[in-house]
Parts: sequence; C-alpha cells; structure tokens
Amino acid sequence: MLLNCDLGESFGNWKMGLDDQVMPFIDQANIACGFHAGDPDVMQHTLSLAKQHQVSIGAHPAYLDLQGFGRRSMHLSSQEIINLLHYQIGALSAMATVQGMQLSYVKPHGALYNDMMAKPAVFAAVVEAIASFPQQLKLMILATAEPEQYQTAAGQVELLFEAFADRRYQDNGHLTPRSQPDAVLDTEQTLQQVKLLAAEGTVITQSGRKLALNPDTLCVHGDNPHALAMVKQIRDLLPR
Amino acid sequence: MLLNCDLGESFGNWKMGLDDQVMPFIDQANIACGFHAGDPDVMQHTLSLAKQHQVSIGAHPAYLDLQGFGRRSMHLSSQEIINLLHYQIGALSAMATVQGMQLSYVKPHGALYNDMMAKPAVFAAVVEAIASFPQQLKLMILATAEPEQYQTAAGQVELLFEAFADRRYQDNGHLTPRSQPDAVLDTEQTLQQVKLLAAEGTVITQSGRKLALNPDTLCVHGDNPHALAMVKQIRDLLPR
Amino acid sequence: MLLNCDLGESFGNWKMGLDDQVMPFIDQANIACGFHAGDPDVMQHTLSLAKQHQVSIGAHPAYLDLQGFGRRSMHLSSQEIINLLHYQIGALSAMATVQGMQLSYVKPHGALYNDMMAKPAVFAAVVEAIASFPQQLKLMILATAEPEQYQTAAGQVELLFEAFADRRYQDNGHLTPRSQPDAVLDTEQTLQQVKLLAAEGTVITQSGRKLALNPDTLCVHGDNPHALAMVKQIRDLLPR
Amino acid sequence: MLLNCDLGESFGNWKMGLDDQVMPFIDQANIACGFHAGDPDVMQHTLSLAKQHQVSIGAHPAYLDLQGFGRRSMHLSSQEIINLLHYQIGALSAMATVQGMQLSYVKPHGALYNDMMAKPAVFAAVVEAIASFPQQLKLMILATAEPEQYQTAAGQVELLFEAFADRRYQDNGHLTPRSQPDAVLDTEQTLQQVKLLAAEGTVITQSGRKLALNPDTLCVHGDNPHALAMVKQIRDLLPR
Repeated sequence: MLLNCDLGESFGNWKMGLDDQVMPFIDQANIACGFHAGDPDVMQHTLSLAKQHQVSIGAHPAYLDLQGFGRRSMHLSSQEIINLLHYQIGALSAMATVQGMQLSYVKPHGALYNDMMAKPAVFAAVVEAIASFPQQLKLMILATAEPEQYQTAAGQVELLFEAFADRRYQDNGHLTPRSQPDAVLDTEQTLQQVKLLAAEGTVITQSGRKLALNPDTLCVHGDNPHALAMVKQIRDLLPR
Repeated sequence: MLLNCDLGESFGNWKMGLDDQVMPFIDQANIACGFHAGDPDVMQHTLSLAKQHQVSIGAHPAYLDLQGFGRRSMHLSSQEIINLLHYQIGALSAMATVQGMQLSYVKPHGALYNDMMAKPAVFAAVVEAIASFPQQLKLMILATAEPEQYQTAAGQVELLFEAFADRRYQDNGHLTPRSQPDAVLDTEQTLQQVKLLAAEGTVITQSGRKLALNPDTLCVHGDNPHALAMVKQIRDLLPR
Repeated sequence: MLLNCDLGESFGNWKMGLDDQVMPFIDQANIACGFHAGDPDVMQHTLSLAKQHQVSIGAHPAYLDLQGFGRRSMHLSSQEIINLLHYQIGALSAMATVQGMQLSYVKPHGALYNDMMAKPAVFAAVVEAIASFPQQLKLMILATAEPEQYQTAAGQVELLFEAFADRRYQDNGHLTPRSQPDAVLDTEQTLQQVKLLAAEGTVITQSGRKLALNPDTLCVHGDNPHALAMVKQIRDLLPR
Repeated sequence: MLLNCDLGESFGNWKMGLDDQVMPFIDQANIACGFHAGDPDVMQHTLSLAKQHQVSIGAHPAYLDLQGFGRRSMHLSSQEIINLLHYQIGALSAMATVQGMQLSYVKPHGALYNDMMAKPAVFAAVVEAIASFPQQLKLMILATAEPEQYQTAAGQVELLFEAFADRRYQDNGHLTPRSQPDAVLDTEQTLQQVKLLAAEGTVITQSGRKLALNPDTLCVHGDNPHALAMVKQIRDLLPR
C-alpha cells in the first residue's frame, strides 16, 4: 500500500502545505494543475521536489474555481469535463517531461472527485478523457465496497483505489460525511486503521463491521505540522 | 509565403473572430491557450476546425491577463516566462494530439510578443522554453531588417519570420506604431504590399525605401467581415 | 409596464450586446458587476450610456464565474451570497454615484436568479443582502402564478415582477425550459404576448390557459440585430 | 504617529497574515479589495475584526492580478485606474457601511502604490479617483523628503504620510530597494528608527544623514509570528 498526498496547492504569493517536508515520506504526489490551485511556477517547483525524492507523480485536476478551491460542484457537459481534463493534464504532463519525469496517473480534485464517484456520467467523462489522452495514465478513485462497478465503467483504464487514513468509513465503503461528529479519526484510531489496512486491506466501519477495501494507496495530508507528524508515523507502519 | 492568423480567441460565452469562415483560407492557425483568451472548450473547437481544413497549428501563449487580453506588459522572471510557456504549450499540445494533430510552432501573443522582440532577456527565455519543450517546435517572430541577431539568439530553435499585410513598415523593419496616423494600410496599399512581398520578399517603408524582409509567413486577421474579405483577396494573390 | 434589459456584459476586449443601440428604447438597465461579465471600464461606460438616455439602473450581480458566464449553479452559504451581493452592488453603486446616478434595484443574474426562484434559502439570502444594503433597493424577480409567497419572503424589500416577452409560459407561471421545442416564441407570438401583457397583464400558457402575471416590467434582449428590431417593435406597443 | 497594517490578504482557502492577532495592536487597517487578494468573504471578516477592535479602516486597492499579488506593474490609462479604484473602494465601502463602519482613507497596494509614487500621471489618476468618490477619503502615500510636491498634486485630497518601521531610507526619503543588502533593518535598528520617528519625526538615512519625514502613520506587518512580536514592541513605544 502506497502513500499519496495532494501537493502543489500554493498559488502565487499564497503558500499552502508543507510540501518540502512531506515529499520525502510519500510515494505518489497528486499535483494541482492551476484550476483550483497551483500556478505554473508552483507546478514547476512541485515537480522538481518530486523528482528529487523520486516520488511518482499524478495530475490533480479540478473545476475552474480558485476562490472555492475546486470544492464547489458545477454542472458541465461531458465534453467540457473532457476538455478541462485534457488541458490540465496536458499542461502538467509537458512540464513533467521537461524535467525528465512522466505522469503516471490522474486523481480528480474536490468536487470533481466527488461528482465522479456519485454520478456515472461524470465518471464516464473522466474515463473517456484518460482513455483518449495521448499518454497511458491510471485513474485514482475512492476504494469502496463495490470496486467492480467502477472497474467495469472504467473499461481499459486501469484504476488505483485509494483509502483514507483518518476518515471513518460507512458500510458501503464511502466516507462518513464531515457533517457527522465522528467523521474524522483521532491519531490512535488513524494508526489502528492504517495497521488493519496494511495487514488485511480492511477497515472497521462506523457500524462495527469489517469491510474489505484492498486499497492500492492511502491518502495522507501535509497541510500542517500535526498532519506531517502523522504521515511520519504512518510511513513507519508501511516500510518501503 | 504562408498565411497565419490568430484564432481561438473566444472565451466562454464571448465570441471573437470569424474562425469558421477564415480557417479555409489560411495555412497556419495561431491558437490561444487560455491565458489571454481561449478556454479549453474554445481550444478543442478551434483544433477541430484546423483539422477539418488541414491547417498547420501553432500555440499562441500569453501573459495571464484576461481583462487586458494579454496586451499589458508584465515584468516576469525568465523562469516564470518559461513556466507559463510550458504550461500553455503543453495544454494545447495534448489537446492537439488527442485529435490526431501535432503543434508545429509557437507564436507568443500581444505584450509577450512585443517584449520578446524588444528585450533580449525575454527573447532568451522564450527560446529556452521552446528548446526545452519535449516536442520540436519552431518560433514565429517578426521579420525585421536584422533577422540574424534573432537567429543567433535563437540558437538551435528554428525561426519563422512573419510579415504583416496591412501595417506600414519603418526602415528598421519594425511596424509603425498604431499611434501614428499612417500605421495601418488601406485595402489597396495592403494588396500592393502583399504583392511585393510575394514577388520579391520586400516592402516599401514609411520613408519610401525598399526593405527586404523575406518573410516565411504573412499575418492576416479574421475578426470581422472586412478583414475576412481581405484575407480572401490576399489568398487569391498567394495560390497554394 | 416597463422594459428592462441585461446590459454591460462585455468584458475586456470581448464585446457583447448592442448596448449603445438598445439603450434608447428601454426603461431599466440591468448592469453586470464584474463577476460573470462587465469589468470596471465596461461598467463605467454602461452607466454613462444609461445616464445619457435617462434609463433607470439596477445591479445585475452573479456567481463568480467568467468562463461559465454566471450560468452554472454553485452551492454557497447564505453569508457567502450576501457578501458577494454587497460587494458587487457596492461597486456598481459607487460608480453610479460618481456619475450622479443612483441604483434603484437588483436583478440577480443567471444561475443565481434561477437558484433564487427555486430555493427559499437563496431567496432569503438575496433579500437579506438587499435589506441590509446601505441604500434602499428593490429586487427584481420572475412574475409567477404565486407572487404572494415571494412577497411574503421578501418582507420589507419591495419586489419588481418581470415577465419575458419571447418565452412561453407554463401553468405555474414559470418559463417553459429551453430544452422543450416550443420554449421560445417567434416574432408574431412575442408581439401577441406583449400586447396581452400590456392590455390585461396576462399570458396564454403552454396548455392554453390564461394566467395573470401582472408584471411591472418586461425583459427584452439586445444581443443581436434581430433582438434589437424586436425591442423597437415592443417599444411601439408600449408607449412611454 | 499611528500604526497601519495591510490586512485581509487571504483569498478563498488560502490564509495569509495573522489578522486576528495583529488587529488589537494597530490603529489603521488597510483592507484588500479583491483584485490582488481578499475575496468578499475575507473582506467581510476583516471588517468585522476591525470593528471589534475599533480600528480605523482604509481601502487597499490594486491592479487586477491575483497570481502576481498586485506586485506587477501594468500600464493602464488614467480612466482605467480611476474605474478600478472606484470599483474596489465602492465594494469595500458598501460592505463597511453594512457593518456600521465608514472608510476613512485609501492606500493603493503594491505596484499601484509604487507607480503612484513614481509616475505623476498615475498619482493624478489616483487623486482624481478619490476626489470624485462619493465619500470623503484621505490618500495614504509614502512620506518622502518632498511631501509638498505630492500635496500640491493632491489638491483638495488630504494626504496621510506613512513611514516604514523596518526599512532603511535613502537621502531622498525613498526606501532602499530590497535588492540592496541593507534594505531591511534588524529588530534593534527597527526599534531605534521607530523611537526617532516618534520623538522627532526623523530617520537616519543610509548615508548617515538625519531626514525629517514627519509621518502620520507607520506601516507594520502581521504576516508571521516574528512580525507580530515586532508590532507589539512598536506598540509599546507608541502608547495610544
């Protein structure tokens, strides 16, 4: 099980994330592509950091919404979704190639990620965008109780399933909404969840059931010193 | 001598240019990449138009300035210029490849074009961006009286020199500023200038001298019915 | 019954609407405030046009979405809606005062208008924004079959009800969605609808029923020569 | 001598500045208006903070440039400068009035501030914008060795002269450019400079001369814990 993290989410003069400090501990960097965060200068710097630490890179494209940080759902046609994905992935991919790296996957951001998991038409558009992209890329999505339906919908596009270290799961394998009081795990619970995922690929859901997620990768955060400390503890549980 | 035209300069709900009507008459489409005009949907449509008419395509990147249409000079570092070029060219290049096309050149837009011609540091940054881009691309610049200095500065990057059909030239081969009353030629003068350029690669400058420009390509416009009519007349003078 | 029109929807170098030509024929100009269209220069020019033709002015604020022209719904909190309204109305109001004019009303644009009509929480936020604005302003909304519910929700804020000249009505007084083939009236039908609205404040709905709308104002368009010609014909039916 | 600080420079999800912590120690809050930083939600929050601590408020308008944080000079016409000032000041002014506050001054930000000090045409445009604004506002500018020339150019608009606590002065009263090694003072030097300004309104310039600046207000920063600690020490030297 690999560790992935959303990075490169600064913009212009605004800094976000302890990218320099978290990069050494992760395996996959999901790099913002300018529509919700990450201008070309931030992208170039984040790519060079990933290169320095030999971290695998993925595009982290979003709806065009700087003020809302890509977290506000917008209704777009399938073609519009495909176009914005080709644009953002293409921009990052070229910048990566310039530095001698290659993109390996795409992880949609924020509202686009949520819409992709919830709406088959959005999922299909994302898949079509990746299948038609000139380079072979995998698609990172949420590991749920029904991976087959997504795999079927993804066709030839290879999926990477991600679990969340610090979020409580519902029985259907979706995350407990943040509006619920126990949505986010504390440190002890997070480490327990990681151990179980590492040992058997399962989580204990909100109702106490054991659910198999078999994730390929675990999403961690590097926004603040506390998150960073957690990443280091998780890394210790998952030796490379 | 080919005909090139700036295209794909609509944005969202705003239409600009008679792209559909001018595309059949030109050889090279300079396609906006989102920073001064041209969102991903406009880019995808413009690319498909170019494909339909078998027009060669180039990236038309700019400073990030929608309100100013990329016409306001901004001081950027060389690395910032390189990054914004890689980003924009990369985005368009991927979208072109999706449609089975390939970019062949880059023509900077507006203030970036002017800064490139006027400031050696900006020219050097543009050249470095193109030289380091994963794909081989030419750079389109203004044909002036001293092409050698630019060619030397461009090193391995191949240049395409463009002339302007409807602009009066100064003795140094630069355009008469629009602030001067006779900066723009009338229809008759424009056609005379095109004929001379086609026949011998020269223009008659403001002071009446004959100046050799030997352009590879001629910039025409497709913004309005009058411009479109002109393009058709120019096309008749330059049979393919 | 007055005539209102959305104006000032150019942006930077992009022109939209025949503002100069339609302004003489309308009574109320709904002026874009920069979030979906209309930069400060466009706003200043549109205000001066309205002043010249002694047209009443209203703010036409929107969600922040230039690419989508404010037509994509976004989920915002009530406070966020209030803030974006205060910001946009405040900006236009100051610019109007500079020219010796005063705003008289607010007409939300696009998706914000639709959300306001469909979601009571959005309507309440819009009302609260207007009620707390330092200047007394009316709110322009869709004239429907149930004006009372909106008037109740609007409390002290005075409503202006608008009808649409060229749209077919459903029995509930809402517009037939554009996805339906007969959503938009032809010229003859439009003029008939205007005549009936002027004479008795009613429309004949899609099902053939007569419905009382009693609008204060009629929304017309000035985007193109055809629309402009229609406005002139409608103006002839509604002498000032 | 009052203390002023640039505040409200967060944007969307990006936080900047320890506004909550620095507000209690300052007299004047220069509030960003959305063009370089500060969206409507940030503005509303910053205004409420200022109200809570009874801090005087000023508009801190800028060129439209989020990525460049308003620090890149752009060539605008006088009318364009006036329009963007009216827009931004108007937006903030309305939001302030909603909370029962009133703007008292304008301090242009970044490149607009520098251009105003360096280019008489820009200074004149700023003055005209303030003179024509519906509310009476002062203009905050750099205290230099020649205040009279600016005061003459400002006409009826009252000026507030500001000094910088931590910047070394040149003999002409302008700041030593940051490109020079001794441009920024250390803590001890800063406190000495503040003491001298408080006692006699003078600074010791780079060349060792004593120069009278007689500032009305001193600009301090609240970006980080170190800056905040400095503000507290400065506040102790300048009892209210």
